[in-house]
Amino acid sequence: MARRRAVIAMPKVKLVVAYDGTDFHGFARQQSLRTVQGTLETVLERVLGYPVEVFGSGRTDAGVHARAQVVHFEMGAGPPVERFPYLLRRALPNDIVCVEACEVDEGFHARFSAQAKTYRYTLQQARVADVFTNRYAWHLPVSLDTAAMERAAKHLIGHHDFTSFCAASTPVQDKRRTIWELKLTSRETYLDLYCTGNGFLQNMVRIVAGTLVDVGEHRIADEDVPHILAGRDRRLAGRTAPAHGLTLWRVEYESS
Amino acid sequence: MARRRAVIAMPKVKLVVAYDGTDFHGFARQQSLRTVQGTLETVLERVLGYPVEVFGSGRTDAGVHARAQVVHFEMGAGPPVERFPYLLRRALPNDIVCVEACEVDEGFHARFSAQAKTYRYTLQQARVADVFTNRYAWHLPVSLDTAAMERAAKHLIGHHDFTSFCAASTPVQDKRRTIWELKLTSRETYLDLYCTGNGFLQNMVRIVAGTLVDVGEHRIADEDVPHILAGRDRRLAGRTAPAHGLTLWRVEYESS
Repeated sequence: MARRRAVIAMPKVKLVVAYDGTDFHGFARQQSLRTVQGTLETVLERVLGYPVEVFGSGRTDAGVHARAQVVHFEMGAGPPVERFPYLLRRALPNDIVCVEACEVDEGFHARFSAQAKTYRYTLQQARVADVFTNRYAWHLPVSLDTAAMERAAKHLIGHHDFTSFCAASTPVQDKRRTIWELKLTSRETYLDLYCTGNGFLQNMVRIVAGTLVDVGEHRIADEDVPHILAGRDRRLAGRTAPAHGLTLWRVEYESS
Repeated sequence: MARRRAVIAMPKVKLVVAYDGTDFHGFARQQSLRTVQGTLETVLERVLGYPVEVFGSGRTDAGVHARAQVVHFEMGAGPPVERFPYLLRRALPNDIVCVEACEVDEGFHARFSAQAKTYRYTLQQARVADVFTNRYAWHLPVSLDTAAMERAAKHLIGHHDFTSFCAASTPVQDKRRTIWELKLTSRETYLDLYCTGNGFLQNMVRIVAGTLVDVGEHRIADEDVPHILAGRDRRLAGRTAPAHGLTLWRVEYESS
């Protein structure tokens, strides 16, 4: 990843952005709705003085958050790239921040160069929800059988056809994907499910999370997960966990 | 604190509630504005079937949060008091939760029986704000001299006339109050200021926090704090820190 110091015609800029997805209609630009892509484009145009097109590593659904979404855009004249986090601090609304900015090679593409993505799904197991994490965690006033959830998760790791774990309406033909890691960790009353893979189908992480919760509540047996995968039918898997518990945690690139 | 088991005419109920103050116009009921007291009264009327009047331990300003605000009300017929956290879970909006409920003696009053209150003011010192704590912490992209802030805080502990640390418009005559504890603790990029006392004047904790930040940025010298107190003039103290960094942390009662 070559870094150039001065302003050169059309440098490509990579931004890492974090957002609270609650008040966005998802990442992807939509006419007259507040979206992450639309907000970034509007604010960058204001800062740079000319319109740019922002490309993300992928869409996030309405209500889904990001700790480290990656986007890129081609810049004409402009300030040193390193100054973007500072310049955008005041220009962006409270619920998006630019965490990092750097110049990248011409061949870089936020979506096509991505090699792995990690999502985190957060559950809170407590009698009453914590009002300060309510926007970021799915509150469940029950006790989950985490050992069963861990056994179920093991069945999902690997290369599988995830038809059963994807919104029935998804137009994508090939529903095979690879989950490299799927692990549960706990902190205080929270249970975090980290899911890393090379790409995810629509609602896939939320259906994985919802199904693991169903296993944790003994509505689905952990040993049934291989049959659910093999059945290739959305109706076999569990609930779709609500969007607000999901956060795009990390996007990885070669040598990044 | 006697506990009665069955439903008796007019038992007094104490609730501990937490709220995210962002979308409330403060605690105190106001016609046609969304307030914490108004929301609790509306929801309790819906749950109980008759109107009740809710009394809080004190008002919190617009935008101020509570981890443990205490309120009481007199109840006619109704469910066992222990069930309130459960009953209110679905009835309350997402940004208020009832953490605890119990029956209290007739003599109990959320405000007049309170013996101590603790507020927490949270600062985040980081180049860019954390978008997930933006609603609950004052972000400062600078490095604060915390040693100077601690020296300044020591001067504020004790019984003083806090005229300089209170909104100039406050109608209260006697502005003497006691701060029992004022301590700074840090976790990751956050600095928490805990302030415990027997009562606070309007904006007092926010002016204390803002003044300590001014000391941390070397705009006010820590050794000037005794003179600021002695001067009894709001203009001598520092900024009023923004409301969103403040949380009512704890209210203490005898034998509670």
